[in-house]
Parts: sequence; C-alpha cells; structure tokens
Amino acid sequence: VEVTIPIYDRFNALDVIGPYEVLRHLPDTRVVLVAAEPGPISTEDGAVTLLAEHSLSEAPAPDVVLVPGGAGEATVREGGPIMDWLVEVNKTSEYTASVCTGALILAAAGLLTGRRATTYWLALDQLSSLGAEAVRERFVFDGKFATSAGVSAGIDMSLALAARIAGDAVAQTIQLAIEYDPQPPFDAGSEFSAPAASVEWLRKRSRF
Amino acid sequence: VEVTIPIYDRFNALDVIGPYEVLRHLPDTRVVLVAAEPGPISTEDGAVTLLAEHSLSEAPAPDVVLVPGGAGEATVREGGPIMDWLVEVNKTSEYTASVCTGALILAAAGLLTGRRATTYWLALDQLSSLGAEAVRERFVFDGKFATSAGVSAGIDMSLALAARIAGDAVAQTIQLAIEYDPQPPFDAGSEFSAPAASVEWLRKRSRF
Repeated sequence: VEVTIPIYDRFNALDVIGPYEVLRHLPDTRVVLVAAEPGPISTEDGAVTLLAEHSLSEAPAPDVVLVPGGAGEATVREGGPIMDWLVEVNKTSEYTASVCTGALILAAAGLLTGRRATTYWLALDQLSSLGAEAVRERFVFDGKFATSAGVSAGIDMSLALAARIAGDAVAQTIQLAIEYDPQPPFDAGSEFSAPAASVEWLRKRSRF
Repeated sequence: VEVTIPIYDRFNALDVIGPYEVLRHLPDTRVVLVAAEPGPISTEDGAVTLLAEHSLSEAPAPDVVLVPGGAGEATVREGGPIMDWLVEVNKTSEYTASVCTGALILAAAGLLTGRRATTYWLALDQLSSLGAEAVRERFVFDGKFATSAGVSAGIDMSLALAARIAGDAVAQTIQLAIEYDPQPPFDAGSEFSAPAASVEWLRKRSRF
C-alpha cells in the first residue's frame, strides 16, 4: 500500500505523525511525505521541521492520500500545485483522507461536495460553507473519503482505515503496537466536555 | 518554559510529536529538538526525517527534558553524547521525562534507579533490570521524573505534565485545542484488552 501525505508550510505535525505511526504498520506499506518542492517544511511555530522526500509529481498514484491540517491550510486552499495534485490523485486513489482542517483543503478542491465529512470543531461551519455536509463525529467515512476531527483524531481514523484495508485483526495489532489505550488525565477533549472557559478561550482566538 | 527533546537515529516519531503538540501550547514555551549533531535524523523506517535544529551543547539547561523511545534507543544507551548530556541537564531540569522505551535510556543513565517508572509494555522487564521499579501504568510521576507507557501514552503524560507546570485549566484548554477526545474503533490498546493473537504476534517479534 502506497500512502502519500502532502505537507506544506505551517502544517500540523500530529496530523501527519499520528496517521503515519498507524498506517506504516500495515503489511507491505510505504508512507511517503511529499511537498510542492522536496526539502524541509516547518510547522506553525517552526519548532518541528519535516523533510519532504519527494515532489508531488514523483507521487502520481498513491493508494491512500492523506491531507493534514494546520494554519497553513488557508493558503493551500487558495489554489496551487497541491490542489491540482489532489484532484488528479483522487481519480485513482483507493482512499482519500484528511485530518483536522485538512478537510477544508479537500472541500475547496471540490472533492467533498455533498459528502458527509468532519473537521476541527471550530471549522465545521467553514467546512459546510465549502460544500460538504459537515457532521460532528470523531471520524467519518463516506465512500472512499475518510475525514477526522481535530489533530489527535487522525489516530482514531487511521485505525479504522487500517481495518478497512487489512482487516480488524491487523488494526488491533497496530493499536497494541502503539499501545493506544488512551487515558487522558482530564475529560476536556470536546466542546461539550471541556470547561466553558477553555471553549471560550479557543473560540475567541479562532481564525474561523 | 524551555522544553528540549533529544532525537537520535531510529527514534519513534509519535513519541516526539505527541508531547510536542501538547507542550508547545504552554504559555511562554519553546520546544527545541536537539541531537548529537544538528541536521536530519530519521525514524526506524526512514519515512519520516526530522531536523534537529541544535546540538546537545547548545541546549545546556532545559526546564523540561523529554526522551523519546524507538528502536535506536538500544544504541543510545550503550553510551555516548546523549547519555552524558542527560546526566548533566538532569541536574538542573525541573522535569525529566520519557516516552515509551525512552525510559530505558534514562534508566541506563542511572537516573531512574529505585524510582517508580514505566515504559512500553514489552520492555517492562528490561526497565526493571536497569534498576527502576517498573510499574504497569499509563504514566508515572516520581518526584521530577515522568515516564509513560508506549508511543501514544506520551500524549496523556504530557497533559498531566502541562497541568503540573501551568495548572489544570491550561492543560484542559490544550486538550481541547488538540481535540483529544479519543475514540479508538477497537479496545485493543493494552496487553489485557487486545486479542491474544495480537499479543502473541508482537511478543514473538519483540527485541526484548
């Protein structure tokens, strides 16, 4: 299985690395990071820089394409090589997926029109305005399109994707391999469980 | 808060990026990746390469030092610059932490002797033989030492660490910021919940 993840300036690192750590354990699988130009690409705060090994044109037909979110998505979806590439690779991909605000990129490329999809909790209205049927779920499959809620949700979605590709037993073994038995010290991971002050704080600073 | 994460050849990417995505949201905080030599450092399968921005000597006194695991840990704990650096920075760190088999590095450096600590489920005996009191928990604090179970457990531990550093309210806001409301599609993340076949498969292939 060829899994290709396009990265771009100011992507979110966990959106990429969560799915990578799940999907790389699939049998006969290779995960490849690509970018408009190969080379170093940095996250929002510049603290983490990943190397994109290949250009988009060197990854013409992935089985799975997975688009991360991050502050830089707003620039990506204005148009350019990643948008054009997504439309092309989506024609032959087995699955087209996104994490967090990566769904806004897929939607802006016209790939989620009329489809059930999800994204970061603060970006659901934006996803809707881009033509998708935005739903508030941890992850959503609609045909070959798999979208997930914010950042950490890419891990959950990727385990479900792994099960569809290779079966439940393989996905369960992967879950144990990354010891994914989550025990967050607080119950504050959703808009409905978090303290009102946390919701307000993030809402006020949201770019959506 | 200065958070320094040493990386090394064949580290685990999620061990680094999970905590990074949590701790970078702490107020007035900078996360820095360091290595014996600055430059590109690759994971086990070579698919992900992170740039270490600084050498160890350029990060002489972090407030938090966090050691990731990965297949390469076995080489690190044979001795060398990272081991020497850890002993030095631990003298002044506010917290010294590890994810997954990163605990074996701390233990081999003599920093966990007699302390309660945890690690990847397959490495608990090894941790014990390196002098720690190995316990099977999601994460453990013993004084300033914070250790976590495998790979994904670094996220849980880092939220608890964030709470100690900046208070529960800040940690809860961070949890919502990364929408960490885990909903794995299977209950297979621990040795006790996973199917016996998954446990056996991983146990047989374990290097411990």
